Amino acid sequence: MEKIRIGIVGLGRLGKRHAYNLANLVPGANLDAACSPVQAELDWAETELGVPHLFTSFDHMLAHADIDAVWIASSSVYHSAQVLAALDRGLHVFVEKPMGVTPDECDAIECAAVTHSRQVFLIGFVRRFDPSYKYAKELLDKGVIGTPFLVRSQTCDLDEYAEFQLEFVKTGGGIFLDMNVHDIDLARWFIGSEIKEVHAVGGSYVHPGFAELGDADNTVCLATFENGAMAVLSASRTAFHGHDTHTEIVGSKGILKIGTTPRKNRVEIFDVAGARTDCVRDFYERFEEGFIAEAREFVACIRSGRRPEIMPRDGTAATRIGMAMTESFRKGAIIKL
Amino acid sequence: MEKIRIGIVGLGRLGKRHAYNLANLVPGANLDAACSPVQAELDWAETELGVPHLFTSFDHMLAHADIDAVWIASSSVYHSAQVLAALDRGLHVFVEKPMGVTPDECDAIECAAVTHSRQVFLIGFVRRFDPSYKYAKELLDKGVIGTPFLVRSQTCDLDEYAEFQLEFVKTGGGIFLDMNVHDIDLARWFIGSEIKEVHAVGGSYVHPGFAELGDADNTVCLATFENGAMAVLSASRTAFHGHDTHTEIVGSKGILKIGTTPRKNRVEIFDVAGARTDCVRDFYERFEEGFIAEAREFVACIRSGRRPEIMPRDGTAATRIGMAMTESFRKGAIIKL
Amino acid sequence: MEKIRIGIVGLGRLGKRHAYNLANLVPGANLDAACSPVQAELDWAETELGVPHLFTSFDHMLAHADIDAVWIASSSVYHSAQVLAALDRGLHVFVEKPMGVTPDECDAIECAAVTHSRQVFLIGFVRRFDPSYKYAKELLDKGVIGTPFLVRSQTCDLDEYAEFQLEFVKTGGGIFLDMNVHDIDLARWFIGSEIKEVHAVGGSYVHPGFAELGDADNTVCLATFENGAMAVLSASRTAFHGHDTHTEIVGSKGILKIGTTPRKNRVEIFDVAGARTDCVRDFYERFEEGFIAEAREFVACIRSGRRPEIMPRDGTAATRIGMAMTESFRKGAIIKL
Amino acid sequence: MEKIRIGIVGLGRLGKRHAYNLANLVPGANLDAACSPVQAELDWAETELGVPHLFTSFDHMLAHADIDAVWIASSSVYHSAQVLAALDRGLHVFVEKPMGVTPDECDAIECAAVTHSRQVFLIGFVRRFDPSYKYAKELLDKGVIGTPFLVRSQTCDLDEYAEFQLEFVKTGGGIFLDMNVHDIDLARWFIGSEIKEVHAVGGSYVHPGFAELGDADNTVCLATFENGAMAVLSASRTAFHGHDTHTEIVGSKGILKIGTTPRKNRVEIFDVAGARTDCVRDFYERFEEGFIAEAREFVACIRSGRRPEIMPRDGTAATRIGMAMTESFRKGAIIKL
Repeated sequence: MEKIRIGIVGLGRLGKRHAYNLANLVPGANLDAACSPVQAELDWAETELGVPHLFTSFDHMLAHADIDAVWIASSSVYHSAQVLAALDRGLHVFVEKPMGVTPDECDAIECAAVTHSRQVFLIGFVRRFDPSYKYAKELLDKGVIGTPFLVRSQTCDLDEYAEFQLEFVKTGGGIFLDMNVHDIDLARWFIGSEIKEVHAVGGSYVHPGFAELGDADNTVCLATFENGAMAVLSASRTAFHGHDTHTEIVGSKGILKIGTTPRKNRVEIFDVAGARTDCVRDFYERFEEGFIAEAREFVACIRSGRRPEIMPRDGTAATRIGMAMTESFRKGAIIKL
Repeated sequence: MEKIRIGIVGLGRLGKRHAYNLANLVPGANLDAACSPVQAELDWAETELGVPHLFTSFDHMLAHADIDAVWIASSSVYHSAQVLAALDRGLHVFVEKPMGVTPDECDAIECAAVTHSRQVFLIGFVRRFDPSYKYAKELLDKGVIGTPFLVRSQTCDLDEYAEFQLEFVKTGGGIFLDMNVHDIDLARWFIGSEIKEVHAVGGSYVHPGFAELGDADNTVCLATFENGAMAVLSASRTAFHGHDTHTEIVGSKGILKIGTTPRKNRVEIFDVAGARTDCVRDFYERFEEGFIAEAREFVACIRSGRRPEIMPRDGTAATRIGMAMTESFRKGAIIKL
Repeated sequence: MEKIRIGIVGLGRLGKRHAYNLANLVPGANLDAACSPVQAELDWAETELGVPHLFTSFDHMLAHADIDAVWIASSSVYHSAQVLAALDRGLHVFVEKPMGVTPDECDAIECAAVTHSRQVFLIGFVRRFDPSYKYAKELLDKGVIGTPFLVRSQTCDLDEYAEFQLEFVKTGGGIFLDMNVHDIDLARWFIGSEIKEVHAVGGSYVHPGFAELGDADNTVCLATFENGAMAVLSASRTAFHGHDTHTEIVGSKGILKIGTTPRKNRVEIFDVAGARTDCVRDFYERFEEGFIAEAREFVACIRSGRRPEIMPRDGTAATRIGMAMTESFRKGAIIKL
Repeated sequence: MEKIRIGIVGLGRLGKRHAYNLANLVPGANLDAACSPVQAELDWAETELGVPHLFTSFDHMLAHADIDAVWIASSSVYHSAQVLAALDRGLHVFVEKPMGVTPDECDAIECAAVTHSRQVFLIGFVRRFDPSYKYAKELLDKGVIGTPFLVRSQTCDLDEYAEFQLEFVKTGGGIFLDMNVHDIDLARWFIGSEIKEVHAVGGSYVHPGFAELGDADNTVCLATFENGAMAVLSASRTAFHGHDTHTEIVGSKGILKIGTTPRKNRVEIFDVAGARTDCVRDFYERFEEGFIAEAREFVACIRSGRRPEIMPRDGTAATRIGMAMTESFRKGAIIKL
């Protein structure tokens, strides 16, 4: 069977990881093209990964590269235009979250995906590919905890990255869109219903700079679903022990918790500081297996003609809900969707 | 030094535990009198604990028993009247939570406590006496986690007790007043500010009977404090693994978690069911040490002339906030205090 | 029912704890007499505990105190003589471990216990009274792990106490007799057979002073039982995280572990040092509940006429096996019992 | 840079995993040839992995395949002959443990490795490549626990595989050689000294069939090192919770534990069975990352001209010590090396 030829756009910190995975760890894939406005990043792709075709413009890559699929890891603001162009050209598309940064962008992509329904379209909700989250979903589907009615999920980043995020907030979507998008997706995935109402609060408890930008460094959102279920979605930019993403699913027969303590590995240390374990440092370390698995799933879907479980409307929902959370936080009011 | 002579009122399930502790495990205390409308309970106090003076009426006990203090473990509806009568008679008073079931009752007690400021008055916020919660407070006060700005706290009871609670709800205050009162107190204690706003949601996900009574079996409340801090206070009547009370305090330098997994003891079992630990069954098993410690503290305060850290206004706040949570849940709206 | 009148001998660090428990926390007990050669310790008993009758000589206490039972917490070298004298006088006897320091002493006590079989005689194998070890034994007896065939058990003390132990070793029995006596007792209790062979190794890895005294600071002993089962019994004087006593019982259907991580309480700390828990500092902190429970059991046996489960031959076995381990360590050879 | 062309021999259960990894997950490697006496296995390699050159004889593969390296995953009895032939032909060699099944075989390989010192030779001590064991070694090397003086390490397989192992024991080396070889290697790696004496005991506590074959289903070995350090090496064929490989390193300043509870992933389940976690099922699930890492290291060494840290004498030591443990178990005596 022929290998799937892929062109990647975006070779920043996360883009490089994706490129490495596609080049080395995905059976059936060939990373044939790479696109970045930064020459040093293209040099890296050529030297380290042996990518044969390099582009400084996405349009050029679409026009000239002999590829089956594009892998979009560029800045969020470019996502929707690149998705639409690639779909239009008949390519399979992977896009990092968020799918789009406005509801209009998301709607346009949903429409295009319908039109191009024979092309594989996958959004990078990487946690769904993490072995632990997958396992939790399997237990849930087997009925181990009965009917789920409450999801708690939170995303916490190391405090030492906060200063860098201060810059990023100016162009990014803020803490709800940038950090909770995964928690929103997980809650919807586990509960199997749509969020109808959100109430978000928060503050800049450690870094006043976020407040100055209309953002926050720690937030909590209470959400309710159409089927009556509840969710508590939290975010923090000020963790000191490590990147701490964890989730709890409460059902009518039991509870599943995923990643309560973000252990780095299986080592425990016993010394004058007590009994302790080091923690993962960032989302990439935590979800390394998930990033590889999502790339393999993308390629496997293309090769087998299978459709991904994640749908364009999942991307739309995450953006809409994240925006509603932002609005709730700013207005101090409950927002209905 | 003379022993403190105590009269207890209320010898139900929890009252019996208190009586046993006072009779056997509190240095400096003599359980000299007991009061209950149930003869079998009085017989138990006489036979098992050797309590010399038995009463079927609280007024009789106040009038005729030669005691220094009363220990009130009767039904919640009697708390305030018994507190007021005992204070008026010059006795030291311990009262189980809730201090009162209406704001008026609470206000009256606050006034009386001022008038009788030389008598010890203690409310049974037992978790403050639990070794783990105390230890967390000490770490907090030492600055180990910096300034606290978020408390998550939840109280979960075993599902098998839910049917019994269906009866209790009719006369009790409902899930917020009955179960979250401790979480409210902990959140105020750890944050050191007053709650100004609550938003509670919930449902009867397992036992529809609670909905029929205007109550719920699982709830979540988002609260904000005057100083800007946040709290998430949850309750569940449908835990299957055990009584699960746990709390998390997030600060500007770290996080404290208390009781995340409600282990019964230090035993782990490894067998076909995996690696597992049994859990505590009910709040008494979980807080056995706290119940003994609060009784010792009560007696120690009396003997040393020291004032308890818990104040009447803590009891008032718990009742007021619990009522606001109930109102929020029923109205589906944010309630300001 | 009359309270049991108890006289204690030995008011050192552990003796004081026992005295406090007997005076305050044991229903049905009266601490009526105390004996110590140290006047300050007697003053403490009088002032803090209100013990009415004080003695500087054990013989005087036996001759003149109006007591039903003695509680022996004196130095190990006095144990056997005091046990024999007290039994001879018709008193119930509790003795701290070790029951005796030579096989001859142990044999004499076994004989005396037979002669005085209507008096309660209890050896302070406190771990059998610890809630977690008791729970493990109950699970074992219920067949949860099938037939046990391997016990791993270890006793580790904080390194900061090692220097003090250097002094103690000169008169005490050394690391095997002093520290492993509890592990030996647990292994025999859980396996239900007698140890027939031991092979002990060790060294002074941190504090060379122990080697100079013919002792060690860390040891491991491999033991086999008459029924074919195995045990690994370890000791360490050089723990840095806390007092770490833990035990594992391997059976034909599963495994029980008791106290793998010696958590101080239910608090976890998440900060720059990772995810961690503080640990118990010493055996008294770890076994506080067990010390109270063994005192209650002693008094309950006396009041009810029940015989303790721990038998004099358990004390003899612990001493004999501890001595065989010492011999094995010194000779570098397998020793048969 | 040219890719390293590899030929694999042995496509059994583990061999297939190695082949999959080499074909898909190792940057810089090409799986160009495969050898097996079983046609179905060769078909699998061709169909699933696209291996172009297939052989039924190892000699044919050496003679005719255009390869740079061989990967030996055949039965243990063929290891040494295949290693010697491949080294002789100038190829780089990876060999699964055990390197050889007799001291003579091991000695011959050590000599050949010296002669062919410019070829990479790597033994499959996979645990050294596991992220947790690697991390522990790094902490050890940084001095986090001071000087190590005691290693406890054990390998436990699921009881349900025991019946299959009954067959395997007849031709394999028995429980010490087959299971403890990794624990031996880890103990030597962490302590940095040679084992001078072993004393092994054990029995067939669950499956009497092992005793009939002169083997055991559960064993414990006490070992001492030339530098005075100690090790306790255990094995079990009768675990019910999962594959349980764990190790503890005790040093003069602290303790490292690796894998104490063999959690399958980050999911915890709370239900009527308590608080629990599922465990890994077999060594492959536990060491999947290690198997990939060792393949990458092999290829990276070849490409960079670097020598592996694992040396031929490590393979010899593991075999010699495993044989001494077997002898000790059979004779009931301490065996010196």
